[in-house]
This record gives sequence, structure tokens and C-alpha cells, in this order.
Amino acid sequence: MTEGFTLWFTGLSGAGKTTIAEIVRAELERRGRRVEWLDGDEVREHLSKGLGFSKEDRDTNIDRIGWVASKLTRHGAAVIVSAISPYAEARNNARAMGEEHGTFVGVFVDGSVEECARRDVKALYEKAFRGEIKEFTGVSDPYEAPASPEVCIESEHEEPEASAQRIVELLEARGLVPAAVTA
Amino acid sequence: MTEGFTLWFTGLSGAGKTTIAEIVRAELERRGRRVEWLDGDEVREHLSKGLGFSKEDRDTNIDRIGWVASKLTRHGAAVIVSAISPYAEARNNARAMGEEHGTFVGVFVDGSVEECARRDVKALYEKAFRGEIKEFTGVSDPYEAPASPEVCIESEHEEPEASAQRIVELLEARGLVPAAVTA
Repeated sequence: MTEGFTLWFTGLSGAGKTTIAEIVRAELERRGRRVEWLDGDEVREHLSKGLGFSKEDRDTNIDRIGWVASKLTRHGAAVIVSAISPYAEARNNARAMGEEHGTFVGVFVDGSVEECARRDVKALYEKAFRGEIKEFTGVSDPYEAPASPEVCIESEHEEPEASAQRIVELLEARGLVPAAVTA
Repeated sequence: MTEGFTLWFTGLSGAGKTTIAEIVRAELERRGRRVEWLDGDEVREHLSKGLGFSKEDRDTNIDRIGWVASKLTRHGAAVIVSAISPYAEARNNARAMGEEHGTFVGVFVDGSVEECARRDVKALYEKAFRGEIKEFTGVSDPYEAPASPEVCIESEHEEPEASAQRIVELLEARGLVPAAVTA
């Protein structure tokens, strides 16, 4: 069986997690890996319906995603998680669960609040600044940057394609995806 | 990749789901399948923490287990679910999710309330009869028996080993586990 792994994207809303993850996903599938993408927003519709955005609920949400990701990793899946996951301890717990069954690769998509707010892809920052959304990470709720992620991406200074390529190269170097076939 | 499947045990508390599932699990692993066992009680500690036993919460619990089982099935796992799962509609939804990615085999462990109460493995029926546990399936909460499960087990009239053997034979006939190696 192929070795499973979890590729975990953390970062503020609008930092570029989904955009980069989508490019990585397509490349992994092109190279024959079966991918399971657990996206924070999608997961909240299924796995974590009813949870809010308090620290306790955020931790439960991340624990649940980490639990599912680790089980999928055990069965050889290439798991991509994209979730704000603002608390270091919850991320570390998810990492520990994942490493029981395979490899865990943390990706920090580092975008400043100013830049994320400037893009404001989902028109959420504007509401957060006005106080219409409470507990908004980076505005009215904390974000604990990871101390030593495997990949650090400054999304203001690198194109998503280049970031994705760096990630895939790391996975390739670790033997988790086969090398690209060149014509 | 090996074809994934979900083997779903439904039935009253104490009917024998866990006992039979444990024998099936050991046999599947002996034959080289990697098994993921989602047990109702364990899942309530992780995936479904905070949910109660109202119809709505039970349906959410089963939806969540079904969602995770279907994702694992997609990645070739042999998934065993053992959960009371009293409502037909929720079980049917779980089946539909599972069949999107592999095979779904329903097992009805049919034990009467009288017999389950007589065994009362977890000393729950006694409390339920006294009204100390509310919403107890079979006593104060409904159980909708499946209309056409792939396997029906009358656990009062069959030893767990024989029931487990029938299940494994069915899986074998469907090409989901390799035949036993005989010396």
C-alpha cells in the first residue's frame, strides 16, 4: 500500500490556503495519488455542524479533522487539510495523531491581516472590522503562528503556482509522491 | 488498490454487534485486509462528542459516521461500523454515501429486547426499565428494523463464531476479501 500522509495548511482566512491546496491536489492526482481534501468550510457543513468559533469549539473542530485525517492517512490516502486552525496546541495534537500512521507535513500560509483584508475574498474582513462578525481570526480572535512548519509560504511575495511547486517537491523528496514524468 | 467496503452492524444494545464484529475484524486482518472499526461508543468520544440521544442527534451521529466511513471506503479500507443506528432513513443515507465509493453490506443483529435485557452486558437495561436512562432504544425509544439487510443474524439462535463466518463468506463471495489459505 502507498504510504499515507497529511498535508496541513494553516493560516488566516484569505491568506491563500485553498488556492495553493487546489494546485497541489491537481498535481498529486496527476501523479496517481488518491487525494482526500478536508476543507475547513466544507467540514463545518458535515463533520462539525453546530460548532461555533469559541476556542473550545475551534479546538473540537480541529481535533475532529485531525482524527479523520489520521484514519485516512493510515489507509494510504494523500490527505490535504485546509483550515485556519489558529491554535498551536490543537495543530500539534493533529500532528501527533497523523504521525501515528504516516507522515505529517505542516504548511504555514503566512499572509498579513492587512493583505488578507485588502483581498477580502469572501467579504468577511469588512464585516469583522465593523464588529458584525465576532471571534474573527486575526481581527478579534488570536492566531498562533506555527514555530517550525515544514513549509512556510509568504503569499504576498510568491505566486501560488510557485508555492505549490515547492510543496510538491518536498513531498517528492520524502518519497510521498512519485517524480513527475517528463516527456 | 484494494476495493473498499463498509460493513455496517445495526441492532439493539447488547444484541451482539461488538462480539461478532470483533471476530470478523480478526479474520479480515488475518487475510491481509487493513480494517478501520468505527464503534458507536468510541465514536461518541471523538467524532460526536456533545451529541445526545434525540432523533436529531442520533441522525447527526449516524450521518457523521457514514460520512467518515464513505471517505475511508474510497481509499480502500475495510470499514466496520457497529452502532445501534435505530433509524432506517439515516442508515439508508449512510448506505448511499458508502455506495458512492465502494460496497456497503448491512448486517442486522436481531435480538429481542427481552434477551438483550436478560444479558444486560453494560447494566443499562435495568436502568432504562426504571426510567433512569431516557431515550433508550428498544425500551423508551424506537428501533426500526432494516427491511432487507444483506445479512440477518438471530443472535439468540446462532453462536457469534457462526454468524461471523457467514459474514466473511459473503464478503469473500463478493470478492472483497481473499479466500482463507488452508494448510
